[in-house]
Amino acid sequence: MGDLKHLVVAKFKEGVVVEEIIQEMEKLLKEIEAVKSFEWGQDTGSEEMLRQGFTHVFLLTFRSSEDFTAFLAHPRHVEFSASFSAAIEKILLLDYPAVVVKTPA
Amino acid sequence: MGDLKHLVVAKFKEGVVVEEIIQEMEKLLKEIEAVKSFEWGQDTGSEEMLRQGFTHVFLLTFRSSEDFTAFLAHPRHVEFSASFSAAIEKILLLDYPAVVVKTPA
Repeated sequence: MGDLKHLVVAKFKEGVVVEEIIQEMEKLLKEIEAVKSFEWGQDTGSEEMLRQGFTHVFLLTFRSSEDFTAFLAHPRHVEFSASFSAAIEKILLLDYPAVVVKTPA
Repeated sequence: MGDLKHLVVAKFKEGVVVEEIIQEMEKLLKEIEAVKSFEWGQDTGSEEMLRQGFTHVFLLTFRSSEDFTAFLAHPRHVEFSASFSAAIEKILLLDYPAVVVKTPA
């Protein structure tokens, strides 16, 4: 089985300093061993209707479901989740084993 | 600037043979030069409430916005989009330049 992906699509509440939250997230995920890779992005192109108001994508990769479980239970993740939840207006989460079809030539 | 990501989160209509659609998508994206990489996955872990009924994630990577524009206009993509749209119950699209924070050690 391939890597396990944890996808978070979010819209932040008005007035939230998104940069600070993302900085904290970057620091956290760099430090937690169980996280294999992490990237994020802010929507620049999609139409408002098609993105349903969501603005940010966070994509975490784990080597195994054990690593993912360890991450979810990690005290620093639990702590961060609480403050993250308070900052978002809406969120969408999907977890899936990645099927890699095409990689850069 | 990093790669450009095109994220599609979808829920298919009942009765749709999802495997066939994904097979066609894999074939298409492998062949279109402008697509740098492609992976997809079916949600296995997230709670129904948190994934809002969405089941599938498709993530395409492009080297540049020019490549992405070329892909969108590609006749085979236009053709596929029409049949794909007919098969889905709901969809979420986000386009973003990827900020890579952590890569595998």
